[in-house]
Amino acid sequence: MAASSSLSTLSHHQTLLSHPKTHLPTTPASSLLVPTTSSKVNGVLLKSTSSSRRLRVGSASAVVRAAAVEALESTDIDQLVEKSVNTIRFLAIDAVEKANSGHPGLPMGCAPMGHILYDEIMRYNPKNPYWFNRDRFVLSAGHGCMLQYALLHLAGYDSVLEEDLKTFRQWGSRIPGHPENFETPGVEVTTGPLGQGIANAVGLALAEKHLAARFNKPDAEIVDHYTYVILGDGCQMEGIAQEACSLAGHWGLGKLIAFYDDNHISIDGDTAIAFTESVDLRFEALGWHVIWVKNGNTGYDEIRAAIKEAKTVTDKPTLIKVTTTIGFGSPNKSNSYSVHGSALGSKEVEATRQNLGWPYEPFHVPEEVKKHWSRHTPEGASLEAEWNTKFAEYEKKYPEDATEFKSITTGEFPAGWEKALPTYTPETPGDATRNLSQQCLNALAKVIPGLLGGSADLASSNMTLLKMFGDFRRTHRKKETFRFGVREHGMGAICNGICLHSPGFVPYCATFFVFTDYMRGAMRISALSEAGVIYVMTHDSIGLGEDGPTHQPIEALSKFPAMPNILMLRPADGNETAGSYKVAVENRKTPSILALSRKKLPNLPGTSIEGVEKGGYTITDNSSGNKPDVILIGTGSELEIAAKAGDELRKEGKAVRVVSFVSWELFEKQSDEYKESVLPSDVTARVSIEAGSTFGWHKIVGSKGKAIGIDKFGASAPAGKIYQEYGITVEAVVEAAKSVC
Amino acid sequence: MAASSSLSTLSHHQTLLSHPKTHLPTTPASSLLVPTTSSKVNGVLLKSTSSSRRLRVGSASAVVRAAAVEALESTDIDQLVEKSVNTIRFLAIDAVEKANSGHPGLPMGCAPMGHILYDEIMRYNPKNPYWFNRDRFVLSAGHGCMLQYALLHLAGYDSVLEEDLKTFRQWGSRIPGHPENFETPGVEVTTGPLGQGIANAVGLALAEKHLAARFNKPDAEIVDHYTYVILGDGCQMEGIAQEACSLAGHWGLGKLIAFYDDNHISIDGDTAIAFTESVDLRFEALGWHVIWVKNGNTGYDEIRAAIKEAKTVTDKPTLIKVTTTIGFGSPNKSNSYSVHGSALGSKEVEATRQNLGWPYEPFHVPEEVKKHWSRHTPEGASLEAEWNTKFAEYEKKYPEDATEFKSITTGEFPAGWEKALPTYTPETPGDATRNLSQQCLNALAKVIPGLLGGSADLASSNMTLLKMFGDFRRTHRKKETFRFGVREHGMGAICNGICLHSPGFVPYCATFFVFTDYMRGAMRISALSEAGVIYVMTHDSIGLGEDGPTHQPIEALSKFPAMPNILMLRPADGNETAGSYKVAVENRKTPSILALSRKKLPNLPGTSIEGVEKGGYTITDNSSGNKPDVILIGTGSELEIAAKAGDELRKEGKAVRVVSFVSWELFEKQSDEYKESVLPSDVTARVSIEAGSTFGWHKIVGSKGKAIGIDKFGASAPAGKIYQEYGITVEAVVEAAKSVC
Repeated sequence: MAASSSLSTLSHHQTLLSHPKTHLPTTPASSLLVPTTSSKVNGVLLKSTSSSRRLRVGSASAVVRAAAVEALESTDIDQLVEKSVNTIRFLAIDAVEKANSGHPGLPMGCAPMGHILYDEIMRYNPKNPYWFNRDRFVLSAGHGCMLQYALLHLAGYDSVLEEDLKTFRQWGSRIPGHPENFETPGVEVTTGPLGQGIANAVGLALAEKHLAARFNKPDAEIVDHYTYVILGDGCQMEGIAQEACSLAGHWGLGKLIAFYDDNHISIDGDTAIAFTESVDLRFEALGWHVIWVKNGNTGYDEIRAAIKEAKTVTDKPTLIKVTTTIGFGSPNKSNSYSVHGSALGSKEVEATRQNLGWPYEPFHVPEEVKKHWSRHTPEGASLEAEWNTKFAEYEKKYPEDATEFKSITTGEFPAGWEKALPTYTPETPGDATRNLSQQCLNALAKVIPGLLGGSADLASSNMTLLKMFGDFRRTHRKKETFRFGVREHGMGAICNGICLHSPGFVPYCATFFVFTDYMRGAMRISALSEAGVIYVMTHDSIGLGEDGPTHQPIEALSKFPAMPNILMLRPADGNETAGSYKVAVENRKTPSILALSRKKLPNLPGTSIEGVEKGGYTITDNSSGNKPDVILIGTGSELEIAAKAGDELRKEGKAVRVVSFVSWELFEKQSDEYKESVLPSDVTARVSIEAGSTFGWHKIVGSKGKAIGIDKFGASAPAGKIYQEYGITVEAVVEAAKSVC
Repeated sequence: MAASSSLSTLSHHQTLLSHPKTHLPTTPASSLLVPTTSSKVNGVLLKSTSSSRRLRVGSASAVVRAAAVEALESTDIDQLVEKSVNTIRFLAIDAVEKANSGHPGLPMGCAPMGHILYDEIMRYNPKNPYWFNRDRFVLSAGHGCMLQYALLHLAGYDSVLEEDLKTFRQWGSRIPGHPENFETPGVEVTTGPLGQGIANAVGLALAEKHLAARFNKPDAEIVDHYTYVILGDGCQMEGIAQEACSLAGHWGLGKLIAFYDDNHISIDGDTAIAFTESVDLRFEALGWHVIWVKNGNTGYDEIRAAIKEAKTVTDKPTLIKVTTTIGFGSPNKSNSYSVHGSALGSKEVEATRQNLGWPYEPFHVPEEVKKHWSRHTPEGASLEAEWNTKFAEYEKKYPEDATEFKSITTGEFPAGWEKALPTYTPETPGDATRNLSQQCLNALAKVIPGLLGGSADLASSNMTLLKMFGDFRRTHRKKETFRFGVREHGMGAICNGICLHSPGFVPYCATFFVFTDYMRGAMRISALSEAGVIYVMTHDSIGLGEDGPTHQPIEALSKFPAMPNILMLRPADGNETAGSYKVAVENRKTPSILALSRKKLPNLPGTSIEGVEKGGYTITDNSSGNKPDVILIGTGSELEIAAKAGDELRKEGKAVRVVSFVSWELFEKQSDEYKESVLPSDVTARVSIEAGSTFGWHKIVGSKGKAIGIDKFGASAPAGKIYQEYGITVEAVVEAAKSVC
């Protein structure tokens, strides 16, 4: 057998794979699951489509290929594919077995489509997992991560070496229990919480379509890749998947190809107990092209044909429903929930080895499989080199576009971009911070090529329209505002996908602050996966008034509760809004939440962009020697109240410091000296005011201070009335201040 | 015209309504929106179906009816319906105008279906909004609440009197900015956050189907009502709606009839910018029966026929897509986003009055409309009386069933139910609190007739199966476990619906604790709407081990962050788990979250059910005079660590108090004396330990104490290893204790 091979000749021979040593696994009624006859069940021998990928590879890799093609007989290739697929299965089985923890079922069932994708279809460079024009792959059913780790290993990624496979799910491993983009290069996004991955994939495909529409030229197609995703029954049940897939259909994302691992088993057993909808019909309703591969276990050519067909449909995303057997090959556990989330156990591993004719030691990759896959390293290098050449030409012809494009692909913003942010003086007429936010967004969109986003059907309330741009539609334009509809969770996850597509994307998304409750799943993934999404969250308190308690956040202010790696910013006026955007844009690996007011607020003396960067800072002070009689601390719309209370108290002769506490997380990062300069430890007379829960404020005001806030739900009434009735007033602050100093 | 009337004669006359004074509103291209010709566009004059309701009314109300029927001519009735519909429209217009805040568009478009439902179809008793067998109505598009308030007013509910209508959205009003069940009797659930209402409705219909299957007898159908819901484009886009509707189809909830207000307008404008899926086809895919009413503006008979048809389909829920014009009747604003969420303005109100021929003062209800609706008070009383008679017979024949049934409908549990809870001693072998939770659930299910629930596809991980019962399926059984599939958000909202169906329901639902992030929208509505759902949240920390940071909650422990009216309980062992269930079951107007461990925990000396009820309490103490050297505070799986650290320190001669802090909220409710007895204010040497964020703990440990926790994301590794690496150890507590005392 030749040292390296190619499957481009598959179309010349259609011999079915034979498994002479294979016993039939315990199977359900469907004969589709019988490996040796399955392809024939469908009655048609399909033309191989694997050549489609090869045809796209340029001249350099063609040389590597040509030699291989000659040397291989068809049966050899069939057997090699089968061996490669079983290698994937057993790497997953062995890693889960060694960890005695994990999910072997999905990798065993999805190994065929995984093999075809990574070996025959996808374009990538294993030695540069961040090459711009790579095809993206997302394992939305993240629990099956050993599938992806096995594929990355075979494909030659340095992130998953043989020794890594043996550390699965252990402390310090590079291959954790679910796919994590920040741990394992080659993994695009962080999945595991179901539904997130497919929504991320929609974001990746949207980013591709946006960039293609904006930068490609008739003579220079520099943006051209697919997004592939595998999702399971669990993902299909999640509402977030529906939201994202509805948008994918609406946007006509033709380069999104999703494989639905239709294995009928979830943790609780047969999906018939909870999931009997027609997924096919639903996706048709969503505007997707739908293909059914009836035999995903051994129907390689069916899978190939489906991918080929999907690529011909350029105006719709495609769902390929691939019916598989979970835990395929395990004689006693396949097609049952017991293979979903537990190690097979040594006895069943042995039985599976027998059944699939696998004589090797754990973690063994047969030499011919290794050799076969080894070509991806030179081929990947060629692919990237060819693209680099193409881009060099593009840069010559279209230097301005190339500059914008490079900002997005490298994450380097034009020097001095922050100077575009507006500044304000106390004389500037007051405005709602949601309106000030719109000024910032529109200013930044002009200088940061990768800034883009939209709202969940509240653009005119969130004030997030980029006025110079149109909407992203099927008939897409150069630069766009996205219209997410009322789909907060999907919106957040799509923005994660955009953000992780290219480092210079600065996606923002918007809804009412209270509806962070609908999208926390996605926000947590932003924080964990280091996606610097900007969450523009308006109507941030009882200050929204009449809509009442369903719409008034109480519990989410101050510090987005305790979530690691997320910045919560609650600006009080124009300068603080600008400062919040500066911080948010700079923090590309930390998402930011901007809590913004619906009501008009004055521009206060003493606020500044620099102050915001410290998280907490003094805006006014009439004390000396860092010894104020009392410190008043406010955030957002209540900083005005704190400032007014300070004025009142000063009239009575008090030395008062007023502190803006715009971001807890930023303040916590400052030096002890700085913190002491703002909140001297021997000044225990402190009063905080914020129109939200007092939970957590005791850390700042101390046990002798007072926290004014709201620890019950809001009410439906004009904003001023609620502030009065809830005691969020200047009088309350003055009274509290007097009681503590 | 007769003083009271009935529409039961409608089937004898099919004259189209004429609007001699009506000018055509500004309409889109579709001629369906032209009021005077619309029904003819569809080519068929449909038989009225309104008699179906009347036929179900028993003998008492038949007398009231008979007189009315004689006195009315058909044209009179048509005109009366039209007048009633316009009354609804103008009550909404006027209330929003007076508040200068609100959403007039939906009530104007949905007034016809609203009228038909409340006047012709639904069975209710306005003087007892809590009559068990009433039909339920949910306005999922809650922003259109003036529709419901107008209907409740006309129907004779005491909660919405004429003077109330004039207080819309004002402080202290009984009709707030979105429908709130706790403010307005007659409103079943709290809506506004989109998608929640339709999911609540699924819960209400599920409750009905469950009770019917469990209690109805061939000779005594005591459970028999419909659940009606109106949802809009916004609800349709939300993932939670998809989740709940998929389950409704799966469960075959034939008595759920949903009206989809298909008006093509959302806040951002025409839904074409973000929502182009085929909703009809999607609902067919979900197993619903789908009907399209093409003219929802004036096609009364079309609406009636659709409801009749929906009732004939008993094995599927029905979606009636009703195409309407938002803001119908407003000549310049209808069919545009400007009528969605703002008052029309006095000029447009006047133009609308002209257009619809409405000569009345604001808030006027024409006398004949008043008279017409007045019959609902005697009819409602009759309906309830008839049902009471039927139930009295049932009670005689089936006393045991009746006792169970009454527990559910009254909320009174059998005396001594709490004695069923298991108790434990330190000698009882240790177990994971998720397993102990299962013991409690199974014990309670035997004594509390209304306890029921399920898991989001994690029953065997959450340990929430009720072992003596089967699954709720189309072929339902006496008592069931629900299988929610991987649909956390829908699950929570469905449980809210079950909970608010009857006061004795004690629904529980389960998933991994980290996935509270997927369902916070529903949990917040539990808290706000006083639905005592029990959230069984297992795998509550890094203690779950290998699944890694995507599955390890960090930020959600201690106090479910700052949300009002929700109890967070984190039991440490068997007694505390039992105590947590006692608290959760007793608090029928406050939801509870039980955070439970995956790993085995010992039964600790000193824990007790009574202790849990205090929220925080001393489990062991070797100090005297309420003056320990140090207080160690732990929760859940870390109480064991605190206890061991206490033992270590005592060996070294320290006087140590170990406190279990199982619930912040419960502790906060205790008297100052009690709090002082547990945490004496002059003992500032305090150390807390919890495998989660330290945010908030400073309130308890004070500025001189130490909070041990985790302020970063977790990791994928065996649990013990992560605890060690993250410093959640006995050694860390001992060291911290020494540093503070």
